[in-house]
Amino acid sequence: MKVVETIKAVRNEVIAAKQTGFSIGFVPTMGYLHEGHVSLIEAARKDHDFVVLSIFVNPLQFGPNEDLDRYPRDFQRDEKIAQKAGVDVIFYPSVHEMYPTNMPMSIHVTSGVDVLCGSSRPGHFDGVATVVMKLLQIVQPNEAYFGQKDAQQLAIIMNMVEAFNVPVNIHGCPTVREEDGLAKSSRNVYLTNEDRAEAPFLYEALKEGANLILSGETRRSVILAELENRLGTGSGRIDYVDVLRYPSLEQSEQLSGKVILAVAYFYKNARLIDNYIVDIQEGEK
Amino acid sequence: MKVVETIKAVRNEVIAAKQTGFSIGFVPTMGYLHEGHVSLIEAARKDHDFVVLSIFVNPLQFGPNEDLDRYPRDFQRDEKIAQKAGVDVIFYPSVHEMYPTNMPMSIHVTSGVDVLCGSSRPGHFDGVATVVMKLLQIVQPNEAYFGQKDAQQLAIIMNMVEAFNVPVNIHGCPTVREEDGLAKSSRNVYLTNEDRAEAPFLYEALKEGANLILSGETRRSVILAELENRLGTGSGRIDYVDVLRYPSLEQSEQLSGKVILAVAYFYKNARLIDNYIVDIQEGEK
Repeated sequence: MKVVETIKAVRNEVIAAKQTGFSIGFVPTMGYLHEGHVSLIEAARKDHDFVVLSIFVNPLQFGPNEDLDRYPRDFQRDEKIAQKAGVDVIFYPSVHEMYPTNMPMSIHVTSGVDVLCGSSRPGHFDGVATVVMKLLQIVQPNEAYFGQKDAQQLAIIMNMVEAFNVPVNIHGCPTVREEDGLAKSSRNVYLTNEDRAEAPFLYEALKEGANLILSGETRRSVILAELENRLGTGSGRIDYVDVLRYPSLEQSEQLSGKVILAVAYFYKNARLIDNYIVDIQEGEK
Repeated sequence: MKVVETIKAVRNEVIAAKQTGFSIGFVPTMGYLHEGHVSLIEAARKDHDFVVLSIFVNPLQFGPNEDLDRYPRDFQRDEKIAQKAGVDVIFYPSVHEMYPTNMPMSIHVTSGVDVLCGSSRPGHFDGVATVVMKLLQIVQPNEAYFGQKDAQQLAIIMNMVEAFNVPVNIHGCPTVREEDGLAKSSRNVYLTNEDRAEAPFLYEALKEGANLILSGETRRSVILAELENRLGTGSGRIDYVDVLRYPSLEQSEQLSGKVILAVAYFYKNARLIDNYIVDIQEGEK
């Protein structure tokens, strides 16, 4: 496994691999890798001859009061995890390498951003779309892998690739969970023991809501009330909870097709997100 | 020469050409080809084995009161000109092929847009950047050709390719002019005989301003006053006239390095633009 820090170097690696006839799988991350990331790497490894992992904590997607400086970083640990999971090249650029000057333009997302994480993190998805567009242009993979845990991010990146005709396939991978159901996240390390013990109730609440839908309840307001009720029993604070069509992220009282139940929840030191997608016609997805 | 109307078809043509070892030159246009476009095609033909021309009148870059519906179109004429100039494939998509749904996002340009054409055409360069990004993703050329006549557009596209790391070389080609100096444009056909006879004075004014700079005058206000004076003698109306650093498009009283003198001028039925770039260190560029 190689570690490269420049755009030129990662491109050379990819060009050489493509000239060998290899197909390229790409896993963009902000590092501090956990089993969720490993599942993305493994999916890329399974489908492609050559796997590129990027580790870049993207300042553009953090708001002024968010946790950019506190975002956990441990490159040496990441390097070991990546190597074990079968990464061929880690692209590990500096902020200056990615943004040598202020960006004279950015991608401005106008659909699917006034809900879920978008409503409480203005500009966040503009920053995500902009850096992912850059990374896709730099690495030029055949396929890029994202977790369904960040369901809104996945939807917006799928929309972006379609809107700009970017020649890449976007692969959404299921959320990886702890044994007790808590979605894996780099931010889980910030939970107190008490909060960590309670946190799996988020997933339980989403599952209950999903079961309600699968058993025939298709009114958004009813599902939402049930979710709010369940989440109200926690010791933290709801940031948002919503029930939306997916991937359009439209609000509609009458639910049909694919539906996402999504929550963001504040504990003292960490904001957790989770979601559950059900297909009313076909059962759980 | 082939004419293709779908994204899939033009990609197949390019993929086949690349597999033959060909390099790809790309000339994006809105059609109604004139000698300016032909010079771009010839430059692409000279540098590359395979030349793709796109003809697409992009609704996104027209404002609500602009001339989208009146924009001149003549595909059969364009086809003959393209074939004669050595185009291999014309990509001629419908609006629906390029925008099957409303765009859920766009490129939002924040630098170099509050001057020149940007100040009087809000959103115009967002539309230009968005469609050019799409076209570059669709065609995936080695090099794309743009006229220096649209100097602000060229600067913004160069900035875009750099900002998003798009793997393509952007080639700026000199403005092609009529014998009397008027810059070639699809919109020249709308001029009355009287306006057409007067219009070359735009270029004369820019040249005079440039000569003033080359003879040692580096105060922006002095050059600007001279230009306004000259342009004031015309029968039309100044939209803007400016003297800026290039390609940053910054206003600065003390001129140095590359400088653009640019004008937009309204006649009754057409708005004309022209510019002149000088390099204070190296003489005219």
